[in-house]
Parts: sequence; C-alpha cells; structure tokens
Amino acid sequence: MSTYEARLVALREQLAKDGLDGFVVPICDEHMSEYVGDYAQRLAWLTGFGGSAGSAVVLKDKAAIFVDGRYTIQVRDQVDGNLYEYVGTADQSVVAWLGENAPESSAIGYDAWLHTQDWAKAAATKLNAKKAQLVAVKTNPIDKVWEDQPEPSLAKLDVQPDEFAGKTAADKRSDIAAWLNEEGLDATVIAALDSVAWAFNIRGKDIANTPVPRGYAIVKADGGAELFVAPEKLSDEVRVHLGNAVSVRDYSEFSDALSEYDGQSVGVDPERSVAAIFGQLKDAGATIVQRRDPTILAKAIKNETEVAGHKAAQARDGAALSKFLHWFSLEAPKGGHDELSVAAKLAEFRGQSEKLMDLSFRTISGTGPNGALCHYSVNEETNRAIETGTLYLVDSGGQYRDGTTDVTRTMAVGEPTAEMIKRYTQVLQGHIALAQAVFPAGTTGGQLDILARQYLWADGVDYAHGTGHGVGAYLSVHEGPQRIAAFGGFNEPLVAGMICSNEPGYYKTDAFGIRIENLILVEQRQVPGAEQEMLGFETLTYAPLDRRLIDRALLSDNQRQWVDDYHQQVLDIVAPQLEGEAANWLQTQCQPL
Amino acid sequence: MSTYEARLVALREQLAKDGLDGFVVPICDEHMSEYVGDYAQRLAWLTGFGGSAGSAVVLKDKAAIFVDGRYTIQVRDQVDGNLYEYVGTADQSVVAWLGENAPESSAIGYDAWLHTQDWAKAAATKLNAKKAQLVAVKTNPIDKVWEDQPEPSLAKLDVQPDEFAGKTAADKRSDIAAWLNEEGLDATVIAALDSVAWAFNIRGKDIANTPVPRGYAIVKADGGAELFVAPEKLSDEVRVHLGNAVSVRDYSEFSDALSEYDGQSVGVDPERSVAAIFGQLKDAGATIVQRRDPTILAKAIKNETEVAGHKAAQARDGAALSKFLHWFSLEAPKGGHDELSVAAKLAEFRGQSEKLMDLSFRTISGTGPNGALCHYSVNEETNRAIETGTLYLVDSGGQYRDGTTDVTRTMAVGEPTAEMIKRYTQVLQGHIALAQAVFPAGTTGGQLDILARQYLWADGVDYAHGTGHGVGAYLSVHEGPQRIAAFGGFNEPLVAGMICSNEPGYYKTDAFGIRIENLILVEQRQVPGAEQEMLGFETLTYAPLDRRLIDRALLSDNQRQWVDDYHQQVLDIVAPQLEGEAANWLQTQCQPL
Repeated sequence: MSTYEARLVALREQLAKDGLDGFVVPICDEHMSEYVGDYAQRLAWLTGFGGSAGSAVVLKDKAAIFVDGRYTIQVRDQVDGNLYEYVGTADQSVVAWLGENAPESSAIGYDAWLHTQDWAKAAATKLNAKKAQLVAVKTNPIDKVWEDQPEPSLAKLDVQPDEFAGKTAADKRSDIAAWLNEEGLDATVIAALDSVAWAFNIRGKDIANTPVPRGYAIVKADGGAELFVAPEKLSDEVRVHLGNAVSVRDYSEFSDALSEYDGQSVGVDPERSVAAIFGQLKDAGATIVQRRDPTILAKAIKNETEVAGHKAAQARDGAALSKFLHWFSLEAPKGGHDELSVAAKLAEFRGQSEKLMDLSFRTISGTGPNGALCHYSVNEETNRAIETGTLYLVDSGGQYRDGTTDVTRTMAVGEPTAEMIKRYTQVLQGHIALAQAVFPAGTTGGQLDILARQYLWADGVDYAHGTGHGVGAYLSVHEGPQRIAAFGGFNEPLVAGMICSNEPGYYKTDAFGIRIENLILVEQRQVPGAEQEMLGFETLTYAPLDRRLIDRALLSDNQRQWVDDYHQQVLDIVAPQLEGEAANWLQTQCQPL
Repeated sequence: MSTYEARLVALREQLAKDGLDGFVVPICDEHMSEYVGDYAQRLAWLTGFGGSAGSAVVLKDKAAIFVDGRYTIQVRDQVDGNLYEYVGTADQSVVAWLGENAPESSAIGYDAWLHTQDWAKAAATKLNAKKAQLVAVKTNPIDKVWEDQPEPSLAKLDVQPDEFAGKTAADKRSDIAAWLNEEGLDATVIAALDSVAWAFNIRGKDIANTPVPRGYAIVKADGGAELFVAPEKLSDEVRVHLGNAVSVRDYSEFSDALSEYDGQSVGVDPERSVAAIFGQLKDAGATIVQRRDPTILAKAIKNETEVAGHKAAQARDGAALSKFLHWFSLEAPKGGHDELSVAAKLAEFRGQSEKLMDLSFRTISGTGPNGALCHYSVNEETNRAIETGTLYLVDSGGQYRDGTTDVTRTMAVGEPTAEMIKRYTQVLQGHIALAQAVFPAGTTGGQLDILARQYLWADGVDYAHGTGHGVGAYLSVHEGPQRIAAFGGFNEPLVAGMICSNEPGYYKTDAFGIRIENLILVEQRQVPGAEQEMLGFETLTYAPLDRRLIDRALLSDNQRQWVDDYHQQVLDIVAPQLEGEAANWLQTQCQPL
C-alpha cells in the first residue's frame, strides 16, 4: 500500500499531465449522498482522513484539508500535517481558501459530478477575480492514480412490496406526472438515491446501512420514466415489478441521456443534483427549471401503511433494545466489557429478529469521556472499558422492511454523581417538553427547537447539535426536508405524518455524555375550542429510561406523569415480548417514579 | 377636491403623455421608511386608502390595489372597487400581477426612488418574459397631476446632546471610517432616516411621531462625511454641532453627488437603499459593494447612557400610564367615554411631563371588537363607546429626549368573563416565559418566539403578529435589525444592550382583544457553572397589570412570584411619583396575588 505522501505526489503528477494547477477533493458521490460507497472515498484514500465530511484542495506546492468542528482532533491524528494544512470550515471555506491561495491565472480542476452548481459558481467567481479558472475534469484524476479503487457495488436490487410501501410505484409516478403537468414541465431528474428508491419502490445494498441502489431516474409528464442502474443489479422479479412504463437503462448512459431532453423543460433540484447535470442539460438545449425533487415531501410524509409498519418495527426494536438494557444492567457493573463488545451484544439482540435487514447506522457506543463526543465512532484504538462510576451512551437503530429505527439511551454504570443526575433530568425535561408540544399547522422545526433546550439553558449549558432529524421508511436514517433545529431544514413546516427524532443531550468534555432519543410522529391534534388546525407528536420509540438518573424532585407533576405514562406504554408494548428475568426487570424499571 | 375617479383619469392621461402603459404606486419614500411624510402619501391621494402599507398598479384599462391581511376589510371601505381590483399580497404579489396583467410589449413605469433594486430586478424579469419593460421615470407622474401635493417638511433640525446619545457624532463617524477601512471601501451611503439621525446625533420633525430629519449621508474612509438636508432646516447651533468634517449639502444635490464617487468603492445597503442609488452609482462608474448600513447594529445595541436614559424615560412614562389606568378604573365603568376620549386623556397624562417631545406612534385605543383588530387605528367613524362587560386595549408610547417607550395594557371594564380571564392569563404566562428566558449568546429572536406562544398553542389558539420588535433611543419605535418572531428579522442574534418589545396577545374576532406589552433589555446573565456566555432580559416598562384578569390558579408558583416581583418593582419606581388616590390605588393593584 502506497504512502499518503506517494499518493499526493502521484496526484500532482497526474494534474500536471492534465494541465491543471490544482484539484478539489470532496467526500461526495454523484447523488449528493450523506454516506457514500467505498469507490467514492477519494478523500480517505488520498489523505487517510476517516471522517464522514470534509474536503481537500491540492495545489502544486501546497495542499489543505478542510473539516468541521467535529473532526478538529481526528484530522490531526489521521492526516499528515507536513502534507496538508488543517483548515476548520468555520474559519475558512474551500472557496475562500482558493481565493487566497490559488495562483493568478491558474487552472483549478473539479469533478462536476461531485459538487453542486452553486458551489461551482461561487468557486468560479472567486477564481475569476484573480484571472484563474475552475475547470471541470472529464475523468476524476484520482480515479486515474488510485490503483486499487473499488468498483461501485453491483449488489442486487429488490422490490419494496406494496404492503410496506403503502402506495404503488405506478401511483407515485402518476403523482409526479400530475405535478409536472401543473408546473408545465416535460420531465424531472431524480438524483438523490433515497428518492429513486422511494419513487420506484425498490431498495438496494450499495451503501452500508442505507438500503438504496445507486441509480438516477427521469420521470416524464406522460407518467413514463427512465431508470438508470447497472443492469447486473436487476433480477427478473425487479424487472417485472418496474413494468413497461419504466425504461431501464445502464447507469453509465445517464449523462448522455440528458442530451435527449433537447428543447424540453426539465425540473432539477439544485440542492440534490450535481453541477454536471445542469451542465449536460444546458449543453443539450433543455430549459432547466429549478424545483425541489417532487418526492421529497411525499417521502417525508408517511402514509398509513408506512406509519403502521414503523410502529411494528419499533415494537420489535424496542424489545431488542430492552433485552440489551437488561443484559447491560447485569453485566456492565461486573467489568470486563468494552464499547465494542457491548455494541456487538446489542447487534446480537437486534439480530435475533429475522426481520432485521441491517443496522440503520454505525452504532455510537461511548462510555465516560467518549460519550461526550457527540458523533463518536468507536474503533479498536478508541475503545474504552465500561467502568463503574461512568455513564454509557448508546445511539443505534435497525433497518427493517417495515421501518427504520434510531434510538439513544444513556445508562449509569454503578452510582451516578449528582451532576450526572441533574444533567440527565434536564435533558429529559427538554425531551418531554418537545414530546408534549402542541402547535399550529405551519409551525417549523426551528420554532420548536428551544423547547428541548430551555432547561439546560436556564443552567447555562447546551448541546452543540440539532434536536431532531427526519427518518425514512426502510430508507435513510437522516431524511429531509424537515429538522428540529435552529439551522439546516429549520424553516420547513412540520406536517402530520412526518417522523422526526427528539434527541436533546448534554456533553461534558473529558467526562461524560448524555442523550435521550426517541422518534416522534407529527399528528393532528384535536384541541377542544381550537381556532385553527393543531398538531402534536406521538412518541414511537419504546424502551425504558434509566430511573437512577432521574431526579424526581426537579420534575413538575406533569413531567412525572409523562414519564409514568411513557413507561406504562413501554410495558404494554415491550413486556409481552420479554420472558423471565428480563420481563421482571422491565416491570421494575417501568414502575411509576 | 377631485374625486378618486378623476385622479385616476388624470394619472392615466399623464402616463399617456409620458409614453407609459402603466405605473406602480407604493407607499414609500426615498429612504425606505416605514412611516412616510405627507408629500409621499401618493397611494392615499390616488385611491383613498389610509393604511400604512400597500401598493397600486395602474394600467390603461385596469388597475389593482394590493394590501396585506391587516387591511382586507379597510381597503374595501376606503377604495372604490369599480376603479381598483382588490388583491391580497398573500394571494398575489405586485410582480406576479404585473406578469399576468401587463400587456405584451408594454412599458410599465416605476419611480426608482421608491423601490429596492431587488424589487426592480424581479419586476423587470417578469415583464421581460412577455417582452414588456420596466421603465424608471424621471419625475413621478403622480407629482405632475397632484395639484395640492404638500411640500416636504422644512422643520428645523436639532442636536441630540451627548448626555443622551452617550457617544459623540465624531466618535460614531470614526467607527464607521474604521469599518470602511477594514472592508476596503472608500465610502458608504447611509439612506435610512434613523441611521442618519443616529450617526450625526441630530433629530428632526419631518415625520409624525418619529423624530428624524429627511436626509441622506455619505460617510468616508477618512472620517469625513457629506450630509444632504434642506439648508432651511439648519440652525447655527446645528451647523456648529456638525463641525468642519461634515460638508452640509442640499438634499436635492444627493442624486448628482453620487456621480462624484466615480472609481471609488462604495458600500450600499440593498435593504435600506432604493434602486435609484444603485443606478446613479453604477452610471457614475463607482464599484458598489453590498453591505449592511454600518450604523444598524451599533444603533440597536444601546450604550450605557442610552440605557440609563431609557430607564428614566420609562419611570416617567410608567407614572403617566399608571395615572391614566387609575383614572380609567374610576371613570370607565361610569360610561360616557369612548376610544378617542380616553386616548386623549392618556395623551394628557403623558403631556403633563415637560420632557415629552411627542407620542411615539398613533395610540391604539380599542374596546370590545375593535380591540380584536391588532393594528386598529381609532378614528371618528370607528370610535366606540367604552362599555361595561368589555375589555379595553391601549397600546401607546412617548418620545422623550432620553428614550422611546411603547407599552400595551388591557383592562376589564366591569366584570370580565371566564374566557377573558383564561386568555389574559395565557397571554401573561407567555409574556412571563419570554421575560424569564435565559439563552446562550448567538440565540436569535426567532428561536425565542415560541416561549410567548406555548400556553396559547396548548389551547389551540395563537396571535397573528410577531412577539417583539426593536425600539430606538429617541428614534423609531420600530427599529431593526432584531425581532422576536418567526419571520422578519428572526435570524438576527440578540446582543446585550438591544431593547425589544415583549408583546404576546390574543384576539377574538368581533369580541375582544388582549395584549400585554413591556419593553425588555437584553443583558448578560451570570449563571453559576455556566459553560458559555448567557443572556437574559431585564424588563424596562413599569405599569400595573389588571389583576382582575389574572387567574391565579393557572399560574405556576414561579409565575405568581414573577407577577408579585414585577408589581413590587412597579411600586418602587412609580409610587413615589403618584399622590393621593392614585398612589393608594397603585398600592392595591400591586399587592401580591
């Protein structure tokens, strides 16, 4: 295996051959995915950086790596500071750095299949100001020098049956066609992988933990569609499922296929489509109309079948997690366990269900100071023993045919300190305030976010992440467009049928981390005498809270009642699935406070 | 006085002479002011519409008037539906209407001194799509046909002394110059009237209730400035105050003066500067750099002198309001009073202070159903008698040299209903939740807004306005950039020294209105053990709440304590300024609940 220095040298030689003075290397794929396949891990190959977000810029005589606040420490551990300058994205963006560091009149390359059009415009403007240019490469130069680059996955697709999807693919296409006609468009590009999966009721295995196939689609105003996937992935069953109205073409034909839309009006989502799609359509003479991918809202608002499936998945997943929590309560105090071993045990409990398709993301299993890293990913090097006197935080979830789960519990190992109890209780109070919120239709997640923070704020502390994200139906565990946060999708109105996480936390650096996460469903709420349509949340996740961490005295009567009611529901749903000691343990955990 | 029909005919004849097929008539002035002088009330002259926001478009064979939800009813009362189509701005914008209704290839006129550049770009794009054009007029055609159009005010300026301003005009200019140098700019245009007044420590009387002079300024990187005001307005004292570093030029020279910035880099605020300013600078060959007016944040963050002055003004104003509330409690139940007469009485109490310069806005004095119109403006026609069994809402304020006040109280006349008491208490609970908020530096008003709504939302009701706006220091009663609301300046972080209103309400159509408004000061908050800089609010307004409207049983212990503490502070500050019966009454009003 070549050294990172050798890889950098090889890339620079390739750039010289390609007539470029520099190149930009993001972690991204052709679909603007949050998680990308191994073939697209170009930044990791080049630099050794193992985080999920970041970029590098390589110039002839200098290079820099850009990461956000989560990865400030990790990047210094993994990436050689002699090769790359470390830049925090809060301090300087890639575009600003290019403006300062790109030589006058230089040619800086970028792969237009890995950036949005807005990024490319901003970078080009900045470079043009110093007579330099941004050049779209034909072939990514890293792919030319990365000798053992993995091939994109060829995992088989499968059908998401209507009994789980709740709506046929034909009906979904017909909704999209109706929208295209309303908007006066001939077609729309669907570029996001989960949108393609949702629209055609298909699933795939090309990305770890997210059951999506790598593919593009173009849906037309006549209700027909083109689906671009590697033909090796298609079974006869899937071909039959797709039917005659869908022309299946090879993934590699997508770029050229855009040229066939000459003279037509095509909707493209600028947030979810890379710059190359805009370039190809423009060159072809198509009229590009910027519109949000029409599946986004339809996918976020779960239908009755999806909601029922989600609840079934939650009941199953809650039983697995409760079994684990029981096991943990017995085993952790004995010692001899560590973050990796207990995460494996949790996976084992989940795996006891034949319905588990995959975990929904890499389990966050953190004890003591590791729990305080809110995006912690355990590995052999960071793995800590579970010790008495610490807190253990586990954020995990399962992918089931009928639903995607995501849940966090925090447990005391041995006797918790007064500080741990106070903070856990404040996090719980925020969690309850959000769970109980009643709000008019039209309210956004950004408006609700403070409900989960107010008890911590009153004590001068906070958590540096959003309170909630959307969740897919056997799809992405992070699904837009809504968020419960002061940033990101904060301004998207919540609509009945959306599923969000409710996950306030508190993180004391070098000491402990706390997070309580349940999924919640936006639902219509009948309020007697209401003067407008009101919404509220139904909590969907069922697993006991660690009562040793709750200071009963800090809770209002109403909050105590919420905990008691919640625990009663946990009993009703989970207890029938447990046996023996575990069932007894759950009974004790769920007694009124 | 000509009829509105005759005026419309005259305008159309003028448009024909000017070669125009249509014209857009906003309520605006050359400074994007919220309130405009009489000379700029072109929409009112043309159509009879008396609201504070709206527009009309006049084409050859049709015309439309555009108003927001506040004025849906009023516009139908005041404007002839045979002459103008009524359009709600929520249903269709002026630009969208032009896109639908402007004839192909037509020339639609607009006055570039009354619109932002962004508006003009949007309108031009829409018109160009049908081969029509947007044409900037040389002279506003309404000014050519409006025979008795008032002249702009020539009221004298005066100096805002340093003892109230807390910072000399020279120091303010030097801060702006430092900023210009940091930004690499040669100069910046200051177009907003209150920004000009603040930057030069001058005040004026050109607009009712807002003590600003009509003027522009250009501040330069060398610390010098040009101030454009009508020379008739300047006393020797003001000239001496302005000093040698400020060149005073006639208001009418401003447009040509922009041409003198050929080759220079000039900062212009696109939100607060009209399109004509951009046009003049561009034609002159200046480099326009869009930057927020550098006085905006400095003006919003009050210095110690301004805060101390504000508190003195509040104590004085609170005494006047308390005297009025005492008078009202005795007189209203007797009958014989109406909205206009009691508003006059309140003005009389305020006027007893020699320090009152003006009211800070037209008093909102509404009883019964009129109280439910949250932007109600009482006049001879709408004036209602104050009757027993109703609520009376009064939103008012004073302009004092040392501060601008804005306060709303709601009083029961006779016995309030259970519904009135419940709603008043819910509004009060929201008011208290916001007043007590503790939040990290960086938090925006948009994040806090829900605190004031949550008790109403839980009962299925709400109020259709923001919770808080900024307030000036002997300046505009509505001052940006911050707001406590889910729209408008919702995303501006709150900073210690900013003053906001805290004014939740509830409005039951055709029945009653409730609003409780105090001003609050953002202050640093020492929280023991805090892990970051925390902020909170100090309430600045002191006048008793109507205890007959408070349901003690609905309040938490903490909320009851807040009311008792607040009333104790009212007693401490206001009681020493009252005598006899009024003082006794205040004692009773301010007893613990």
